Amino acid sequence: MASESPIVPLAEFHDFVVRCMMAVEVSRDHAEALADLLVAADYRGHFSHGLNRLEMYIDDIKTKTNATHGTPKIVKETVATALVDGDNVLGPVVGKFCIDLAIEKAKTAGIGWVSARNSNHFGIAGWYGIRATQQGMLGMAFTNTSPFLVPTNSKKPALGTNPICLAAPAKDGDSFVLDMATTSVAVGKIELAETRGDKIPVGWAVDKDGAPLTEPGKQVGLSPLGGEAKTSGYKGYGLAMMVEIFCGIMSGAHYGPFVRNWKDKSSAADLGQCFVAINPEAFEDGFTDRMSDLMSYCRNLEPVEGESEVMVAGDPERKHMAKCDKQGGIPYHPNQIAGANVLAKSLGVQPMKTL
Amino acid sequence: MASESPIVPLAEFHDFVVRCMMAVEVSRDHAEALADLLVAADYRGHFSHGLNRLEMYIDDIKTKTNATHGTPKIVKETVATALVDGDNVLGPVVGKFCIDLAIEKAKTAGIGWVSARNSNHFGIAGWYGIRATQQGMLGMAFTNTSPFLVPTNSKKPALGTNPICLAAPAKDGDSFVLDMATTSVAVGKIELAETRGDKIPVGWAVDKDGAPLTEPGKQVGLSPLGGEAKTSGYKGYGLAMMVEIFCGIMSGAHYGPFVRNWKDKSSAADLGQCFVAINPEAFEDGFTDRMSDLMSYCRNLEPVEGESEVMVAGDPERKHMAKCDKQGGIPYHPNQIAGANVLAKSLGVQPMKTL
Repeated sequence: MASESPIVPLAEFHDFVVRCMMAVEVSRDHAEALADLLVAADYRGHFSHGLNRLEMYIDDIKTKTNATHGTPKIVKETVATALVDGDNVLGPVVGKFCIDLAIEKAKTAGIGWVSARNSNHFGIAGWYGIRATQQGMLGMAFTNTSPFLVPTNSKKPALGTNPICLAAPAKDGDSFVLDMATTSVAVGKIELAETRGDKIPVGWAVDKDGAPLTEPGKQVGLSPLGGEAKTSGYKGYGLAMMVEIFCGIMSGAHYGPFVRNWKDKSSAADLGQCFVAINPEAFEDGFTDRMSDLMSYCRNLEPVEGESEVMVAGDPERKHMAKCDKQGGIPYHPNQIAGANVLAKSLGVQPMKTL
Repeated sequence: MASESPIVPLAEFHDFVVRCMMAVEVSRDHAEALADLLVAADYRGHFSHGLNRLEMYIDDIKTKTNATHGTPKIVKETVATALVDGDNVLGPVVGKFCIDLAIEKAKTAGIGWVSARNSNHFGIAGWYGIRATQQGMLGMAFTNTSPFLVPTNSKKPALGTNPICLAAPAKDGDSFVLDMATTSVAVGKIELAETRGDKIPVGWAVDKDGAPLTEPGKQVGLSPLGGEAKTSGYKGYGLAMMVEIFCGIMSGAHYGPFVRNWKDKSSAADLGQCFVAINPEAFEDGFTDRMSDLMSYCRNLEPVEGESEVMVAGDPERKHMAKCDKQGGIPYHPNQIAGANVLAKSLGVQPMKTL
């Protein structure tokens, strides 16, 4: 982002989200759960999932009866598992409830596996995994989404971008944070290519005949990770199905092709999600030492020509956070700040202050 | 396979494996565990992992002190987790012990998560998942392997082909069985292309400079699922690392670049593995109904031109099993039967009878 990008301190962005959500009658604790998540997304450099999504969450509130007074409930549980009904509240409120429940279970049972239904868009999956690492645990999160993924040999979508997150703690605050869609790429990446007039690589998306597309704009759906069958796209399709099994199938939420379309607000989303915490103390001592050793080995591999380094999952985000720390906050495009100001005015709250 | 392929009934192949293993002083129950797995591999059409590997297991026995009299032991456990020391016995013996332990735990705790060290090559990961489905549960299995996967931007391997398996039960004996390496393809697929004089697609393997390779034979390692960085190969690299975390890092086994090379028998393999069983009864009722509904939806999608159908994970294997059932057994290439006869003679056991 250009150096003239206005900088917003993390605390100010956090407070702005809380101000906006409370203006539409969301309780302070629900507003803070959402703010925690949106700040984490932009701080980590996932700008599509932070301030960029605030209006979507506000629209969600306007069309949802439970968003301002619901609360997630445990439907069924064992010492190590739970089935949760999210009561159609904000996705990050459901997610925080579930990962915290999983962490509590993992403290005594070694693992906590929680599957939720009746949830909503939960933001970056990484946030829930990271929350577990802050208590010295491994954390996983999965969600189903609106159908975008076109199965191998099909002409139309049947599954979502169904992300997988695993976060694992290493030494001295370091961590491994995998947070990936099971499609090759997110929709946003194709939109960006279209805006720029760029072609897209074979393996990102398919056209109405199910054929690989290189011209963005005509996609009917996304290819699974791996792309075409000859490069093992059926594996990405299988992984997306795995996520759906943990989410919609296990919890009794909407699943696969029956999840409502993106931006359709005519019915409750009823998304399925899954949250797991694993306590490394239930396994061999020295987990974080071995994590750091393996990550260090990978980071020190000789890079191919033209690349400066080999990274591990979470490193690009770590670089972005260091940059934010140096600048005193998150750098936003001026258009995003302008949009936030319009939103502030419409809600009658104080606009977001920049440095 | 050609129609003149000799057919071996499943029971006869099973008995042949037991005969061979008992001839090298393996106990009957260990020999049967291996036989169960090898039969399942060939019956499912994964010929690289069945009869084809029998000699490798026999070589393993000859170089391992514990293979004939060891037994896996629980090092540490909770109601839902266990850390197991495989005692360096045959991989399928360790695996069967662990998945059965996970299933027992899942009966009461809803989930069983077992991580094992000091194990050996465990064959097809799918077998352990399927074993859980036979008791109405979801089953997962993971193993680390010798280093083959070249991380994104690296010039040399650092992780194994690290497979992921999830099997989930559907109605009327149907099931979803995902069993996939986190590399684009297995080494065998590249060897086959070389034998045939075919080129290989970009995204399968890299050369000594870490550049994509299309000429088989010069690979220094395999590309992660997703291939190059522009088609999100870093996701496959991240998934391989996830598997390594569940296996070597969690259990204290060898991990990543420190796993011995393939076919090196100078030291114990000390592989790390992970086995999970999840009881759908701990979650929303009707799991198998929803599984069947989603699988049926996918199977009934209109296929792209030139393809006869859309499948779900496990369908190609299901077709192969049906073919075997019709023929009365597994069809082998005559060279494989010849090899098995040589092996039988060297061990002084009855050769394998064909139909």
